[in-house]
Amino acid sequence: MEIQKVLETMAEKTDQVLAKALSCQDPDILPLWDAMRYSVQGGGKRIRPALAQLFCRLFGGSEEKVLPYAAALECIHTYSLIHDDLPCMDDDDLRRGRPSCHKQFGEARAVLAGDGLLTYAFELAASNPYATASDNNRAVILLAQAAGPLGMVAGQEMDLAEKQPTPAFEWLLKTHRLKTGAMIRCAALLGVLAAGKYDDAQAVAAATAYADAVGLAFQIIDDLLDYTESEADTGKSASDEANDKLTFLRFMSPGDAFDFAVCQTVEAMRAILPFEGNDQLTCLARYLLLRTK
Amino acid sequence: MEIQKVLETMAEKTDQVLAKALSCQDPDILPLWDAMRYSVQGGGKRIRPALAQLFCRLFGGSEEKVLPYAAALECIHTYSLIHDDLPCMDDDDLRRGRPSCHKQFGEARAVLAGDGLLTYAFELAASNPYATASDNNRAVILLAQAAGPLGMVAGQEMDLAEKQPTPAFEWLLKTHRLKTGAMIRCAALLGVLAAGKYDDAQAVAAATAYADAVGLAFQIIDDLLDYTESEADTGKSASDEANDKLTFLRFMSPGDAFDFAVCQTVEAMRAILPFEGNDQLTCLARYLLLRTK
Repeated sequence: MEIQKVLETMAEKTDQVLAKALSCQDPDILPLWDAMRYSVQGGGKRIRPALAQLFCRLFGGSEEKVLPYAAALECIHTYSLIHDDLPCMDDDDLRRGRPSCHKQFGEARAVLAGDGLLTYAFELAASNPYATASDNNRAVILLAQAAGPLGMVAGQEMDLAEKQPTPAFEWLLKTHRLKTGAMIRCAALLGVLAAGKYDDAQAVAAATAYADAVGLAFQIIDDLLDYTESEADTGKSASDEANDKLTFLRFMSPGDAFDFAVCQTVEAMRAILPFEGNDQLTCLARYLLLRTK
Repeated sequence: MEIQKVLETMAEKTDQVLAKALSCQDPDILPLWDAMRYSVQGGGKRIRPALAQLFCRLFGGSEEKVLPYAAALECIHTYSLIHDDLPCMDDDDLRRGRPSCHKQFGEARAVLAGDGLLTYAFELAASNPYATASDNNRAVILLAQAAGPLGMVAGQEMDLAEKQPTPAFEWLLKTHRLKTGAMIRCAALLGVLAAGKYDDAQAVAAATAYADAVGLAFQIIDDLLDYTESEADTGKSASDEANDKLTFLRFMSPGDAFDFAVCQTVEAMRAILPFEGNDQLTCLARYLLLRTK
């Protein structure tokens, strides 16, 4: 099966779990849940859930066990986008081609929708009925460390503080490692966990190496797409450029940046080479490298 | 020992755990952690941690086991205050007599500090080294349900939506039950959990009844204090009145409101009557009723 088709099928599974998890019958709080659903259903690529699903499959785990973790990953990813788009942060009016959450529901509700999704993610992971309490506890720790103030939130802090006179390449790498890399690594590790292989050092090392390399390549390609494509094509406003964000293109030419992404992609493929059934993860790495949006 | 002295000692214990948990050695992200620490160390009453500690003690649990849960409760409480104070929410410049987080550190960092504390709370609870993975998993579920979009965040949503033409008393009760009551109940239940009594239906019912009654009384007294005291006395700006917030005084006289709080306090005391060693929780209920700030 083509990797795009695999991703579509996996996204549908994640979306089914999310749709069920995000239903709410209480009319008094519907606007909050509408805002949460609106943002989750914005048509993201569901890369993090797919990584969890693919690593779970690679190591022989069952799909039902990984899906609540996949849904939790997407809730946290969506919360980060909602808060990142706020006027006091990146001030983005558009997200995935639609009005961002605060444009659609107001700023206060966008703060709450983000808070709600973040908190709910931990409930989803901790309550996974197909896993043991011990596995769920490990999942919560992985998610909290990746998303928290030494992970993704720390990356956001570095983003805020980036207006240094002479930004260093190491600063950029660290920002990405924290801001996007930590959750991508977490996604792969949750797949390993759901497959019951979290005690297998070789499996953990392979998932970590794959995710770190793919995550870095992903960010480089993002920077290249922002650079080469217009606002209409990406569905995002050109705020990164407008805000003079630190990107890979501050340190290298577009050609060199692409070569860098190629090297990372090869690294990712090598990491999973020893494992039978690695073809879908290999295709995913190539697909993410060659994507045009 | 007087209850005030008990609370002070318990707050010191909680603060020790928080101080250790909130230390950060990475200079690149210090501003974020400064903002988190600033808000946590703002001199709150530490009522939620105390409730957890007192219920743990009542049911014979060890102090070290409950303290990580107590710290997690305070992190979540502090995050809720930071986000609640934001310009797009209650727009409060003062919190506990000092500049609120966004006044001191800017709006973007206040959003991140809140996000960071919320996420970190789950890591603290999930990583409690003195409890089993199963207990920690249960603690995470309790915290996430109480703080999440069917708990505290739902209460915030009702606060946003409260500008109805004829607000009902039931709306006010439900808002408080979600916005403050859920986390207060959670605090008591975490104490029961840390004492290893979460499977004891009588203990859970008593903690729930006590916390619900004390939580309601607490809110009524808050409304009365806002009504009778000036901005300087409470350390909060008079924003509740300014924003025309829904309070108990919309539905009853100050005298009737106080009687209502007395009844709730008696309810709370009755709930723990069967248990030996209930004197400190009895004193706490009376102390919260008669507090002047």
